[in-house]
Amino acid sequence: MNKIDINYNQKLERQLNFIIEIDKIKNIIRKSKLFDGSRFENDAEHSWTICIMALLLKDFCNFPVDIEKIITMLLIHDIVEIDAGDTFLYSSERNNAHENEMQAADRIFGLLDGKQKEYFIKLWNEFENRETNEAKFAAVFDRLEPLIQNYIYEGYTWKKYNITYDMVIEKNKHIREGSETIWEFVLKLLERAVERGYLKK
Amino acid sequence: MNKIDINYNQKLERQLNFIIEIDKIKNIIRKSKLFDGSRFENDAEHSWTICIMALLLKDFCNFPVDIEKIITMLLIHDIVEIDAGDTFLYSSERNNAHENEMQAADRIFGLLDGKQKEYFIKLWNEFENRETNEAKFAAVFDRLEPLIQNYIYEGYTWKKYNITYDMVIEKNKHIREGSETIWEFVLKLLERAVERGYLKK
Repeated sequence: MNKIDINYNQKLERQLNFIIEIDKIKNIIRKSKLFDGSRFENDAEHSWTICIMALLLKDFCNFPVDIEKIITMLLIHDIVEIDAGDTFLYSSERNNAHENEMQAADRIFGLLDGKQKEYFIKLWNEFENRETNEAKFAAVFDRLEPLIQNYIYEGYTWKKYNITYDMVIEKNKHIREGSETIWEFVLKLLERAVERGYLKK
Repeated sequence: MNKIDINYNQKLERQLNFIIEIDKIKNIIRKSKLFDGSRFENDAEHSWTICIMALLLKDFCNFPVDIEKIITMLLIHDIVEIDAGDTFLYSSERNNAHENEMQAADRIFGLLDGKQKEYFIKLWNEFENRETNEAKFAAVFDRLEPLIQNYIYEGYTWKKYNITYDMVIEKNKHIREGSETIWEFVLKLLERAVERGYLKK
């Protein structure tokens, strides 16, 4: 792949070369399909959707939050998967993923200058640790999108990987820390999914 | 396509059904390819990239701006293309596109309740009119991404549609209203593109 090599403004060109590098996220394919079921979703598309979700649903947050920070987190949260790959939420590999993802963050955000590199790595860590209000609310949408995708196409991923109701609850229950209302909705959605045979209890 | 039909929280479910509707943007294909040249980009991917560009390059703006507003504009700016389609920047259809796009904005954002519908239509119009500082800076990135894509893959779209240097200048010169620095960079980039035979003068 080519790079920008005009040698007119080093800072700008370094940033644009970062943009070219992170374009690879468009080839990182998730386990969930688009809402029309036509194909699997990629990480850039997923990130776009959950940014709009967070903007639309911010009134359901348990506490006041800095929405600009949340959107920034959601825009960049999966960039590490360019090196580390997409690990399935319910797989055992998930436990080892974090080490690879930290190395990826260091390499990819390291393409930027010191100040921007530090800012993005800090923000990515904040998202991963889910301790601040912004990280808790951002995490809601990273989980809500695939839950709704699975509901819409009748439990496709749940059935394919033998995911049970209890496993879904266990891996998604932290939604409640960001939004009680959305978590209550998810519980109703999962009950309906069980009734309809999309998900096994 | 199915909808969310839990009947637990009408407001939330209406918003989620909007999210399902706008997923169609992932099937709206642009004239530009990904930076690796492997396939054409879709509108969701384009929107993700230019949001990160705006965050990264905000220091190059001619004036102070509300970056949250800019990101929101960029996230939603192409949603109208779900109904109106992607019209090529250099085509004559471009002049008729706006009427179709206004109808699309009314239908699609009309899936939300009155307050959110009004907010998004107002924001989309602000982006289209390019009169406020935020709209001027947001417009920089909507144009900068395809310019860089074309540079990187050696003028693919310019050559395919017989686009000349003067046409590129004419359709992109408003970049200067958002960022003098980025416009100066674009001029250097286009000169280099001409030297290398990617673009005809």
